[in-house]
Amino acid sequence: MNSPTNRHPNMSDRKSDLATVISQIDIDSLGQNIYDLIERLFPLCRSITGDGLRQSLKIISEHIPLQIREIPTGTKVFDWEIPREWNISDAYVKDANSDRVIDFKKSNLHVVNYSTPISANLSLDELKPHLHSLPEHPDWIPYRTTYYNDDWGFCLSHKDFLALKDGQYHVHIDASLKHGALSYGELVVKGESDEKILLFAHCCHPSLSNDNLSGVALLTELAALLEKMKLRYTYHFVIAPATIGSVAWLSRNEEELSKIRHGLVASVLGDAGHMHYKKTRSACETIDRAVTHILEQSGDPFEILDFSPWGYDERQFCSPGINLPVGRLTRSPNGAYPEYHTSADDMTLVKPDYLAMSLRTYLNVLCCLETDLTYLNLQPKGEPQLGKRGLYRKMGGFQDIAETQLAMLWMLNLSDGTKSILDVAERTGINYLKLYTAANILCEHELLQLAERVSGT
Amino acid sequence: MNSPTNRHPNMSDRKSDLATVISQIDIDSLGQNIYDLIERLFPLCRSITGDGLRQSLKIISEHIPLQIREIPTGTKVFDWEIPREWNISDAYVKDANSDRVIDFKKSNLHVVNYSTPISANLSLDELKPHLHSLPEHPDWIPYRTTYYNDDWGFCLSHKDFLALKDGQYHVHIDASLKHGALSYGELVVKGESDEKILLFAHCCHPSLSNDNLSGVALLTELAALLEKMKLRYTYHFVIAPATIGSVAWLSRNEEELSKIRHGLVASVLGDAGHMHYKKTRSACETIDRAVTHILEQSGDPFEILDFSPWGYDERQFCSPGINLPVGRLTRSPNGAYPEYHTSADDMTLVKPDYLAMSLRTYLNVLCCLETDLTYLNLQPKGEPQLGKRGLYRKMGGFQDIAETQLAMLWMLNLSDGTKSILDVAERTGINYLKLYTAANILCEHELLQLAERVSGT
Amino acid sequence: MNSPTNRHPNMSDRKSDLATVISQIDIDSLGQNIYDLIERLFPLCRSITGDGLRQSLKIISEHIPLQIREIPTGTKVFDWEIPREWNISDAYVKDANSDRVIDFKKSNLHVVNYSTPISANLSLDELKPHLHSLPEHPDWIPYRTTYYNDDWGFCLSHKDFLALKDGQYHVHIDASLKHGALSYGELVVKGESDEKILLFAHCCHPSLSNDNLSGVALLTELAALLEKMKLRYTYHFVIAPATIGSVAWLSRNEEELSKIRHGLVASVLGDAGHMHYKKTRSACETIDRAVTHILEQSGDPFEILDFSPWGYDERQFCSPGINLPVGRLTRSPNGAYPEYHTSADDMTLVKPDYLAMSLRTYLNVLCCLETDLTYLNLQPKGEPQLGKRGLYRKMGGFQDIAETQLAMLWMLNLSDGTKSILDVAERTGINYLKLYTAANILCEHELLQLAERVSGT
Repeated sequence: MNSPTNRHPNMSDRKSDLATVISQIDIDSLGQNIYDLIERLFPLCRSITGDGLRQSLKIISEHIPLQIREIPTGTKVFDWEIPREWNISDAYVKDANSDRVIDFKKSNLHVVNYSTPISANLSLDELKPHLHSLPEHPDWIPYRTTYYNDDWGFCLSHKDFLALKDGQYHVHIDASLKHGALSYGELVVKGESDEKILLFAHCCHPSLSNDNLSGVALLTELAALLEKMKLRYTYHFVIAPATIGSVAWLSRNEEELSKIRHGLVASVLGDAGHMHYKKTRSACETIDRAVTHILEQSGDPFEILDFSPWGYDERQFCSPGINLPVGRLTRSPNGAYPEYHTSADDMTLVKPDYLAMSLRTYLNVLCCLETDLTYLNLQPKGEPQLGKRGLYRKMGGFQDIAETQLAMLWMLNLSDGTKSILDVAERTGINYLKLYTAANILCEHELLQLAERVSGT
Repeated sequence: MNSPTNRHPNMSDRKSDLATVISQIDIDSLGQNIYDLIERLFPLCRSITGDGLRQSLKIISEHIPLQIREIPTGTKVFDWEIPREWNISDAYVKDANSDRVIDFKKSNLHVVNYSTPISANLSLDELKPHLHSLPEHPDWIPYRTTYYNDDWGFCLSHKDFLALKDGQYHVHIDASLKHGALSYGELVVKGESDEKILLFAHCCHPSLSNDNLSGVALLTELAALLEKMKLRYTYHFVIAPATIGSVAWLSRNEEELSKIRHGLVASVLGDAGHMHYKKTRSACETIDRAVTHILEQSGDPFEILDFSPWGYDERQFCSPGINLPVGRLTRSPNGAYPEYHTSADDMTLVKPDYLAMSLRTYLNVLCCLETDLTYLNLQPKGEPQLGKRGLYRKMGGFQDIAETQLAMLWMLNLSDGTKSILDVAERTGINYLKLYTAANILCEHELLQLAERVSGT
Repeated sequence: MNSPTNRHPNMSDRKSDLATVISQIDIDSLGQNIYDLIERLFPLCRSITGDGLRQSLKIISEHIPLQIREIPTGTKVFDWEIPREWNISDAYVKDANSDRVIDFKKSNLHVVNYSTPISANLSLDELKPHLHSLPEHPDWIPYRTTYYNDDWGFCLSHKDFLALKDGQYHVHIDASLKHGALSYGELVVKGESDEKILLFAHCCHPSLSNDNLSGVALLTELAALLEKMKLRYTYHFVIAPATIGSVAWLSRNEEELSKIRHGLVASVLGDAGHMHYKKTRSACETIDRAVTHILEQSGDPFEILDFSPWGYDERQFCSPGINLPVGRLTRSPNGAYPEYHTSADDMTLVKPDYLAMSLRTYLNVLCCLETDLTYLNLQPKGEPQLGKRGLYRKMGGFQDIAETQLAMLWMLNLSDGTKSILDVAERTGINYLKLYTAANILCEHELLQLAERVSGT
């Protein structure tokens, strides 16, 4: 990035930075945009490959300039191999009266995802081992997959399962498993530095709203916003199938991974649960500290979870040979809300308000990362005389001090060139934006200056 | 300090060391001395400059050989400048009957400290913006200052404020703001080493007893005691106006600062509040650990506060370009008792008993610093046979062990040349003086010896 | 250990390793063996020297090939000297009717251990200073010693003490203090590596069951088991008198001490108290972490105690000039159960069940140390595809994951060549044996391999 022409791609125009944008836009209103996109994507039958996934990516690319990539069946990606592409047009179970007692047209969750094609007559006893239901939630259809094991099955509500009568059934799955490709989308939004922030969402679940689509749609809205801003970091958005998708993306981007400074895996961002942040493998990355501080300052309940190699695609980003500083920021965690991986994870579970709150959290975290710089106090011996610069109240003797002034005193006290704003925020518990504002005021009065950047362009 | 003649200035005479003195003197009785000095200093109208301050330092110098320094108006001290000297002889507000409704002669708190001279007739409405009172404490006069902003004002009880009737008032402040000097006092009590302990008290408040005078008077008594002792450290006492005084002292002693190993800022030492220690900027200095251990062992309630760049002169000592290991040891913290900066901080708020308890704490802390050395176990393989040296009970088989013997066993166990008595005290929770006594006994029996001093003379 | 002939003394035969043995043997049944050995040793009058100790070691050597060592009286061992050997054949106090009111034949606790010989007539008043009883436990005889101070005395129940009538008594102690030797036993069980685990029990108390004999007998059973196993570590068992015995052993084995990687002092292992582990001096050794994890996973109550230089022979092993990573694993701690050092510490206090539970804990700890190796993930980029290897359930979409699979995912995630199984166990809280099993399965599938051993043969 040394060529003068592309060094600061966003610096010469009139774009605003993230801190300014956050203070100006009406984030609440953006929840509806995200909701609308979820609603449009909801009916498609996605899987880890196939046209449902491909079509979803195309819809997203109407909103942001997403690049759609295709990796052919059989390609080796680390320890894995891109599987045959799966497509499905219809599936059903008919009873002796030729009534569709289970019908893919009514819900794409009725078919075990990646089922092999079949057309056969079976007795109820023969059929039962291929049926999946949830006795503990008798009205909900479970979501099941058989990606890497040739098999077939149907999912149905336990109520419907119990209503099946003895007799003969005709089973039909009009699916194909053929040489094809795995699709994923990516978008790079350039910033001043070529250091990157990775933002990932999985997009392989069929009609599931909170798990998968809320993350996809929120990242789409976020990318659309960042596209218009002056940015310090370069942002790399990836929307891909879970596991095989992130593994494939990693295997094709190995040389670029060293540029990733921070990252988040996004999903489950529309339900009523409070925010949950799952830490990176090392648990002490800047992203861990930034998200924790933002959540602490939010005033809302939240929970910080330890890393575990079970969950979403952070499992791949945090594998020992990749080891990226990538955390996961969701509302409810995976598997921890009752509707997870069932037909109840539908458009009634997600709300524009929750989506907007989630977006605000993402923006606050990114704003923290964008602005988290280190300063040097230019009058470090004793306190500088703030009063003569109009930065201190004129009368003395009061018992307390305004938080704005305390923010300035702390920035002065800790700005010895080794501590960033986030360091100060963590030590003091003062709101990050208040400290950032204080730093800017002190810079204007030549009491602080930016310490030399340790890394970056 | 290499000249043989002055190397150990206190070693050749018969002075006792701090540990011995503490065990011999009646500290309780010294509270009255401190109280008496506060009472004598109380009536003077001190400020950050001027004759009230100068006269206070002279009174102190009747007790200890304090050196009084003067820095002329206009002298640059780091980012600050010595202001014009302020002196005041009278001030009042007279009503239409020529009655003094506010009278400096009754309390020097009635005038906003550093008020510009004025003589004028004003209506009550014109006067009100210059009047300061405390609605939440209607009988108390607040203490207000306007050091670095040319202005004037009066402070009065809210009861008196509400009693003011409409009409004309004559306002008169017979003060001067002229080229002069800032005064402060210092005293160096020499010890064996030229490593220093800094002890600072601010002395710029007018008739306020607990905040400011209790610290000044306690340090005076402490200096008088140390003058008579055999000391390891050299003690540097500074009594000066707040902020500008410590900034000025720092700017004139910059080359000597590297000798300061530990330090305490003293004030608010006579009230009924329990002890509060405010940690240094790094929070892990020896002074932080010594004070914490002494307070823990005291059996009295106490609180340890994190450093913050708001408070007393520790703000200057702990600024990033100075960064001295200076904490603050008070009873109630600044601003945290209701009488703070009001006329209720008078001679009834401080008690000889509390002053004595505070002095005892200071002495215990200094004793710890004086004696906190590192030893080497001379029989480190297994335990030495204490019994044959008469250091262990003769009969065996009992369930427990006396704390005196346990102190010896711990000193032996941890004296590998890297851990000081304070390290052992922190690890074991055993009283510091018990460990120090054990170390001395073991040295007498040639089971311990002092490890080579890492620093010092 | 470079000679090919003796490099892996246990590897060529059919011995099983500790993990396999633990899963196969009926540990519960071994409690009775330990109990039986305690019962056989109980009547002997042991001391820190003499025939009672010597005979005890001989009985133990009927079970394991214990080497019995003798160090002559007068030999210097560090700061100590081997004392004269003490032997006793009879002792009593007779009243005026020649009735034995105190009789060594009834309990060897009646004589203060190491009493000098005496034969004299005394009035009750002259006798009393030589009598020891426990008013708080009027039925129990205390255990008292006078090893390093020439004196004599009798111990008796306080009830009997109060029943003594005024009058003349004849006192007789038929003991000898002569040039002889101090005896101790040791056994080295060879493993693949010459790195050692030290296991120590003191064996100097007369008829005391829980304190001293339970440790001696448990280590005997443990040594008998290890003798039949394929071991990674070499085990050094030492059964010796307390203090002087461990000091003597240390002084004679100084050059070999650097091979000791872990160690435990064993005693008080048969009572109903829950397990107590006393940490090593540094508190952060592998033995500290292994015992803590095993106790946490046991599901039983337990307590972890900080190191202190008061207790059993860990005092010597953890002295600063020796500083071995030796902890202490007991049920009740020394001095912390009422029967400690009294005649109530008899065969009714210890139970085969508790002894078996203690043995199980020792075996689990040793199994952890034996198998605590570091692995390398051979497919570290992303997760390896466990499904194609039959290591993952075939159907996807479930809310939770089996602990066995989670153990595999964790071992894969953390096996970057720097973290051992115990590290993974501590971070995840997953049972050590589950992780060890997972590691073995992953090695079979060539997904993990042992990282190069940092130390060892």
